[in-house]
Amino acid sequence: MPRLNKILQPKSIAIIGASRKEGSLGKMFMEAVLRMNFKGEIYPVNPKADVIDGIKTYPSVSELPQKPDLAVILLSYQFVLPTVEALGKSGIRDIIVISAGFKEVGGEGLEREKELIKLGKTYDLNILGPNCMGIFNTREDISFNGTFSPTLPQPGHAAFISQSGALGVAVLELYAQSDLGFSVFVSTGNKADISDTDALEFLTDDANTQVVTLYMESIDQPTAFKEICRKTVAKKPVLAVKAGRTDSGHKAASSHTGALANPEHIVDGFLKQCGVIRIDTLEEMFDAARALALQPLPSGPRTAVITNAGGPGILASDAIERAGLQLAVFSASTIEKLTAVLPAEAAKTNPVDMIASANEETYKNALKIILQDEGVDSVLLIIVKPPVNSTPASIISGLKPLLQNTTKTVIPVLMANRDDTFGIDVLKRLKLPVFPYPESAVKTLAVMQRYKQIREQLRSEENSAPQKFYDSLPLNSAPGSNQADIKTIFDLFEQYEIPTAPYRVSTRLEDILQFQKESAGSVVLKTANAQIIHKSDEGLLQLNLNDAAAVSEAFQSIASKVQSLLPAGETPLFLVQRQLPKGAELVLGGKRDEQFGPVVMAGFGGIMVEVLKDVIFRIAPLSPAEALEMLNELKAQAFFNGFRGQPAVSREKFAETISRFSRLLHDHPEISEMDLNPLIWNEEAGAAVVVDARATVKL
Amino acid sequence: MPRLNKILQPKSIAIIGASRKEGSLGKMFMEAVLRMNFKGEIYPVNPKADVIDGIKTYPSVSELPQKPDLAVILLSYQFVLPTVEALGKSGIRDIIVISAGFKEVGGEGLEREKELIKLGKTYDLNILGPNCMGIFNTREDISFNGTFSPTLPQPGHAAFISQSGALGVAVLELYAQSDLGFSVFVSTGNKADISDTDALEFLTDDANTQVVTLYMESIDQPTAFKEICRKTVAKKPVLAVKAGRTDSGHKAASSHTGALANPEHIVDGFLKQCGVIRIDTLEEMFDAARALALQPLPSGPRTAVITNAGGPGILASDAIERAGLQLAVFSASTIEKLTAVLPAEAAKTNPVDMIASANEETYKNALKIILQDEGVDSVLLIIVKPPVNSTPASIISGLKPLLQNTTKTVIPVLMANRDDTFGIDVLKRLKLPVFPYPESAVKTLAVMQRYKQIREQLRSEENSAPQKFYDSLPLNSAPGSNQADIKTIFDLFEQYEIPTAPYRVSTRLEDILQFQKESAGSVVLKTANAQIIHKSDEGLLQLNLNDAAAVSEAFQSIASKVQSLLPAGETPLFLVQRQLPKGAELVLGGKRDEQFGPVVMAGFGGIMVEVLKDVIFRIAPLSPAEALEMLNELKAQAFFNGFRGQPAVSREKFAETISRFSRLLHDHPEISEMDLNPLIWNEEAGAAVVVDARATVKL
Repeated sequence: MPRLNKILQPKSIAIIGASRKEGSLGKMFMEAVLRMNFKGEIYPVNPKADVIDGIKTYPSVSELPQKPDLAVILLSYQFVLPTVEALGKSGIRDIIVISAGFKEVGGEGLEREKELIKLGKTYDLNILGPNCMGIFNTREDISFNGTFSPTLPQPGHAAFISQSGALGVAVLELYAQSDLGFSVFVSTGNKADISDTDALEFLTDDANTQVVTLYMESIDQPTAFKEICRKTVAKKPVLAVKAGRTDSGHKAASSHTGALANPEHIVDGFLKQCGVIRIDTLEEMFDAARALALQPLPSGPRTAVITNAGGPGILASDAIERAGLQLAVFSASTIEKLTAVLPAEAAKTNPVDMIASANEETYKNALKIILQDEGVDSVLLIIVKPPVNSTPASIISGLKPLLQNTTKTVIPVLMANRDDTFGIDVLKRLKLPVFPYPESAVKTLAVMQRYKQIREQLRSEENSAPQKFYDSLPLNSAPGSNQADIKTIFDLFEQYEIPTAPYRVSTRLEDILQFQKESAGSVVLKTANAQIIHKSDEGLLQLNLNDAAAVSEAFQSIASKVQSLLPAGETPLFLVQRQLPKGAELVLGGKRDEQFGPVVMAGFGGIMVEVLKDVIFRIAPLSPAEALEMLNELKAQAFFNGFRGQPAVSREKFAETISRFSRLLHDHPEISEMDLNPLIWNEEAGAAVVVDARATVKL
Repeated sequence: MPRLNKILQPKSIAIIGASRKEGSLGKMFMEAVLRMNFKGEIYPVNPKADVIDGIKTYPSVSELPQKPDLAVILLSYQFVLPTVEALGKSGIRDIIVISAGFKEVGGEGLEREKELIKLGKTYDLNILGPNCMGIFNTREDISFNGTFSPTLPQPGHAAFISQSGALGVAVLELYAQSDLGFSVFVSTGNKADISDTDALEFLTDDANTQVVTLYMESIDQPTAFKEICRKTVAKKPVLAVKAGRTDSGHKAASSHTGALANPEHIVDGFLKQCGVIRIDTLEEMFDAARALALQPLPSGPRTAVITNAGGPGILASDAIERAGLQLAVFSASTIEKLTAVLPAEAAKTNPVDMIASANEETYKNALKIILQDEGVDSVLLIIVKPPVNSTPASIISGLKPLLQNTTKTVIPVLMANRDDTFGIDVLKRLKLPVFPYPESAVKTLAVMQRYKQIREQLRSEENSAPQKFYDSLPLNSAPGSNQADIKTIFDLFEQYEIPTAPYRVSTRLEDILQFQKESAGSVVLKTANAQIIHKSDEGLLQLNLNDAAAVSEAFQSIASKVQSLLPAGETPLFLVQRQLPKGAELVLGGKRDEQFGPVVMAGFGGIMVEVLKDVIFRIAPLSPAEALEMLNELKAQAFFNGFRGQPAVSREKFAETISRFSRLLHDHPEISEMDLNPLIWNEEAGAAVVVDARATVKL
């Protein structure tokens, strides 16, 4: 059962610290609860009062007439721990701690928070907070406003989970008179016990919530977060604004809630793997939430634009293409029908410019025809307030039968003064999210379309990673080094079917000569002693060796150089490889992040990684489909198609290798860092082949 | 005198086609004029009425009691030309043609528009339109609403020039109840005569206008537009949304007003050269206009954030860094003073989080201290509606003395319901543009800062290009080719002081041997016959020639290959060059665009241009400062700093070469296309040195 089940759906609440004192938290909280007509029992607790706001008040928790579902603590920090203990003892398990003075103030507060967590474990409690702004649930049979907010939330189907309590209030304020209605709000505060993850668990099955919005300053338990997100996202969209994106933001966030700085390059990929749609700004997030809560998902990217003014239609067209959507191409029959109902001066292709004379009839006729076109997935309905003969309200009203009988997405853009003719009420009745500008409406459509794709992809994927993909032995470091030796690394590659260039490792010249003899063509010889990392810099790698003489000479030269770099008594070890024909250079890397675990990096080698940092990160393990999506984010797409006569590189094949490598990292926690650099695309093998690799293992 | 002087400031107007008929354009127009209390004389013209709206009406233009400053034509298209002719004959020179049915309908309409233009020339008229929505001017002594708009514009200091008339109406509607006030609106319509350029000319000296906003679907006279823009921008900011950015937008725009598609890669650089700030969306443009019309420009990028809620402060910090602004670093004294007035839990560094208990006093104290810090250029003042004890309105009121005594930029972000406590009136009185979200406020601050930089740069630059920079002979093509021969090209480079590798051009082996002998080190030999373009593909370029034997052999080999490619009777021509040491490869290109004239392209060679298209475009001629800004836009900035041990490339030196090349293009209209590819950065010369070049000249 979700841990927030009772906190978000209490039938009875104890308000500990309820008060009659003007301006006190205790009074504000009581009033907020009463203002929204909480449907359950209220037990104010205050030793100094008998009645607060007309409700019988109890001197202490132990004297309550029954055990409430939820206790809310509004006391000063020094009284919080004893109260929690008393609650625990009396068997009350669900608690919201509004009080501040914990981790966020450091020092003693930190200790206080640790004690709170300990109490929670001792009594098996569910604690939300401390230092939080509370929660609300607008569901009719609950109607619980536990946030102090003097402005009541509009009931609706968007949930908001916020690491900043004040932001919850701010959002309520900003949308008080809009078409964004909320189901649930959770202020997670210091996340001492209950976190985003628990909130998502509740919301996944909350029938009243159709879209989840998140404001995060940190991601605290990545693995659990990802697991629950993917369950939520299979049912409803999750949108997130993650603050602390820049260095300046990082610093501000850590001084706010003591949030750990999450490395930005990891966060972005991680949220994608969670199925979460990361949004740049709060405004764009709530814009998208409005539409997702009201309108059906588009069944594809093909967007029609209907307008009574040319300019906004053009801006919409630009926005559609830039957002990765498509301007729908109408069928001949659609154009014919439009021609029959629109004036001669109107544009009958997409965007449909019906010119300024358009009225209710014109909009109705055009929308009807366009909704029937099978090549149209969604419609952007632009209305500039007609100078005469009609109003936005009457145009929208006229569309009622059409809108009620379509499963296509329709988003209105009303460029009009919000006066009586605007039609707020009819828009609400018809569940139309309204936008003032075509650009923001299109951004929202793109988020809807993105969610559709994510959900489809999620459904086609297996959901969680096995304990281990392969049963392989841990990598060991070579003696006196934290580096694994190349032979063990290459053996591991073989086990995970990661292609490598044919090779042999040996200390003996005769083995190497034998390998050269067997290989038709050139070979590469290099040192394989794990202690030596920078091979090419020191002449310890030699290319283009065609015959026995060349191999012998290279062997001697490398051996003498290496000997001086090795600890006494150690023998030079060699790796000889078949030299591959020229091909695109790729890189793969892995690093174990403290918070996120094994992180995989992939990209093209050379300039692309070194100068342009054109590499993408994801958390291991990755499915081939996830790896493919990762590759699609690289800037250097042209390399995949074959550049300057080089053979094309198969994205799918490379994605397969990335997925295998990610499993290797997942299975081998002893690897703290690993580089496959370079891999060379090999036509013959139809794969990116590892030419060199190194791994740092935990000593 | 600006051509729009009378049209925008008429003392008397004739309304030709004024009407009493409900729903007619003639009635709507009359009513719009009357509703705003036009300060001059009104002469309705209509043969079928004596009085309209209580005003004496005249049967024809010739019977007016005096010659009006302006005539507005609202007639059906077939009556427009005779009316314009009658106006011309009677000496009325300033005309707005609202009527549609011209270029935008094609066919006969196109002819009609040509006739209109001809009449304009014959009678020396100033014609705005046709197919336009009119104009307004809110200046108190004019108060002329010539737009049909039933919603009256709020007087203010932002001007809007729009190629889409309906968009003007839409914008009036959207900002009817906001803090954006307008000075002037001009709907340019088909731009048959008067264009954006004329509107800018008027606005440059219009004391009532503090910021100009532009909606453009096409740029029609780039040279004139640039010239006037730079004059306007020296006095006030010009912001533009240019539609038709994508292919879809292009198509929509050309079917709307028959606008020519401007190549997007050119438009972006061109607008920068004009000093125009291009904005992505209408909303962002008008956001920035609101702030620019009300607040002083920041004197730098250092931004302080004051907030009563942590989350929005963090989002503001992220936004500041991403927008290229800086979070101000407070002095020790500021932090000390803040510590004295703020509660212990508050953050005293930037962003200053005063926590939820902050009231009027707290805001006043903090703002006072921060405005005194010399390290602060602007302040973002975030107020989440306090749950108790205070309101946004009272907080803002309390800041009045501080705000009236500062020259620093202050932008409030009010995350609050727009009810009575919001303080709309006090915000207006204090000239504060208000934003609902920190992110949009920061975007606006960034535009303000950008304008400040542009204005400073403009002031430091000479304004217009001379007829010719150098007195050089035109380039000729080689016989039977449209390519200039390499010798003439290199001679031109010498004249413009564009560095080239030491070279000689000759048909004779002995000259080439002589050159090799004089050059210490290797030389490069290649064909110099203008007809042969792809040298390296066909073995017609040989590198690393160290001695006479190698040179002779290369000479023979190239000669025999070239001979077969040349017209009979032509002799193989050679270019021998000193081979430069390895260095970064750069490219420079020029192409004559039909609308914009000579366009310069610059970037790094190889992958950067071929795969990543990392090149920047500008219109010639360019000052070195403009060229430097161009280089700063390249993604591959790391190359300038020296990559993989290559010497660093001086941006300033390359910018100097770009500027010289742009002058060459400017001076030589016969060059339709020119490539300098590659240039190699040469440490010794301290310059990017041209290694190869070709030029296509008009035959």
